[in-house]
Amino acid sequence: MEKIGFIGLGIMGKPMARNLMKAGYSLVVYNRSPKPVEELVKEDAVKANSAAEVAEEAKIIITMLPDGPDVEQVILGPKGIIDKAKSGSIVIDMSSIAPAVTLHIGEVLHGKGIHFIDAPVSGGEPGAIAGTLSIMVGGDEGIVEEVKPILQKMGKSVIRVGELGAGQTAKLVNQILVAIHIQAMGEAFVLAKKSGVSPTIVFEAIRNGLAGSNILNAKMPLILSRNFKPGFKMKLHQKDLRNALLTARELGLNLPVTTMVQKSLSSLVEKGKGEEDHSGLVHVIEEINNITISK
Amino acid sequence: MEKIGFIGLGIMGKPMARNLMKAGYSLVVYNRSPKPVEELVKEDAVKANSAAEVAEEAKIIITMLPDGPDVEQVILGPKGIIDKAKSGSIVIDMSSIAPAVTLHIGEVLHGKGIHFIDAPVSGGEPGAIAGTLSIMVGGDEGIVEEVKPILQKMGKSVIRVGELGAGQTAKLVNQILVAIHIQAMGEAFVLAKKSGVSPTIVFEAIRNGLAGSNILNAKMPLILSRNFKPGFKMKLHQKDLRNALLTARELGLNLPVTTMVQKSLSSLVEKGKGEEDHSGLVHVIEEINNITISK
Repeated sequence: MEKIGFIGLGIMGKPMARNLMKAGYSLVVYNRSPKPVEELVKEDAVKANSAAEVAEEAKIIITMLPDGPDVEQVILGPKGIIDKAKSGSIVIDMSSIAPAVTLHIGEVLHGKGIHFIDAPVSGGEPGAIAGTLSIMVGGDEGIVEEVKPILQKMGKSVIRVGELGAGQTAKLVNQILVAIHIQAMGEAFVLAKKSGVSPTIVFEAIRNGLAGSNILNAKMPLILSRNFKPGFKMKLHQKDLRNALLTARELGLNLPVTTMVQKSLSSLVEKGKGEEDHSGLVHVIEEINNITISK
Repeated sequence: MEKIGFIGLGIMGKPMARNLMKAGYSLVVYNRSPKPVEELVKEDAVKANSAAEVAEEAKIIITMLPDGPDVEQVILGPKGIIDKAKSGSIVIDMSSIAPAVTLHIGEVLHGKGIHFIDAPVSGGEPGAIAGTLSIMVGGDEGIVEEVKPILQKMGKSVIRVGELGAGQTAKLVNQILVAIHIQAMGEAFVLAKKSGVSPTIVFEAIRNGLAGSNILNAKMPLILSRNFKPGFKMKLHQKDLRNALLTARELGLNLPVTTMVQKSLSSLVEKGKGEEDHSGLVHVIEEINNITISK
């Protein structure tokens, strides 16, 4: 089977890379901090000393990094993928970054005959481990078809949304919805709690109706038991909404509630709560109202 | 089987009353406009000429009316239920009204030995017709148990949330969540549309992930096909958020996004769009951004 390069072995990247190895692919891996590289080398991955070296060894290269500047650095920077990638190589960026950065990278790579597609994911660490991520793909249809079997080893849903950048746009839609849903949970359930009505029972009474949602089912039990261990870190959700609002500004769009929710996320990150689960967004509503959504 | 009084035969009340008749109950009905009364009389309901007359004939009386003032009028006003209800009667208000009004009515009825419980519903006209409503109940546990078999003829989920008023509080939680979810859909999908990415495909790509919700599944196909035929009317959702914000004010709570969404709902109702489906809330985001969320 093909050799695949994998750059970025964080909370998400490491289990995703593992699922590719389990499926029988040979992996060449690179990561800034050495520890996850050592782990995967023990499981038969080959270590590379730079992104360029990964590109020398593998024709298909996956990147899974925190944000746009990291992706630009690893692909276009010194000792980056572009240094050594052969014409016809395919770079798949599975990070969540601003679509405009995706388009810029794609243009530079295109000039060197290197294919680029965006394939951000949803589903968090549990989905990455289980190989059940939702993968939103943007890019040339033929190239997407070619790498689909690889992506399907990491996700249960792999959908091509459109041309390059469209995967990132779908991810922004996803993150706007999820963040605003958490805000809604905060506002709705402080009302129940302050009224003296059990948030737990209200949750049970409404979850199967029109107010029900996947995030409500996933997070309400954790909020009620005051468990804000991540899951998906607040600082990453703040980064995603920043990218959403940057994109909105470029497009001349006004998204008032997204803007308001992003202010709350930013204030929490500034207070050092960025490592908490994103459901901790309810803290802002709890604090201004001096009440806690608990059982 | 028991005789049941039913007051308020609107879009919701009429099919709910029908489901009780189908289950074998004898109904005594009253409604301000005569047409639905005539319909149900053909199906063997007995006509009453006032709410008081209903209370004279039936020991269990259900009210299903637009808002708090209507409920107060029908229960406490001239020729109201309180005029003729015997001690030990049970009044079940299934309208969606402010919890404070529920508590006031309950107090007055209590003084006459009349039981009062609140049992607002979620699920709209289709749920009312199919008998699959979610019913959120507040009130004395013994009384709620006594009337549960009746409520179960109208709903698939009947949950006692707490003491009198708790059903209304749960309904407000429900309505805050649903309204903010629609707002989120507006903001997220104008971003997709303006980016040139198909909202239809983005919807398919994200609906099974953390961003998925019951309202997204129910309304996104209708929004994409520009079908705003109600369902649940915008003016009723505006009324519910008004009751939520009145309740919040009484409790000293600040609900910033709920407040913002309510301003949008009110502006639409003022423009004469109150008869549209509540998913028409996305119009506000579409208008400020001069773009339409369509296929």
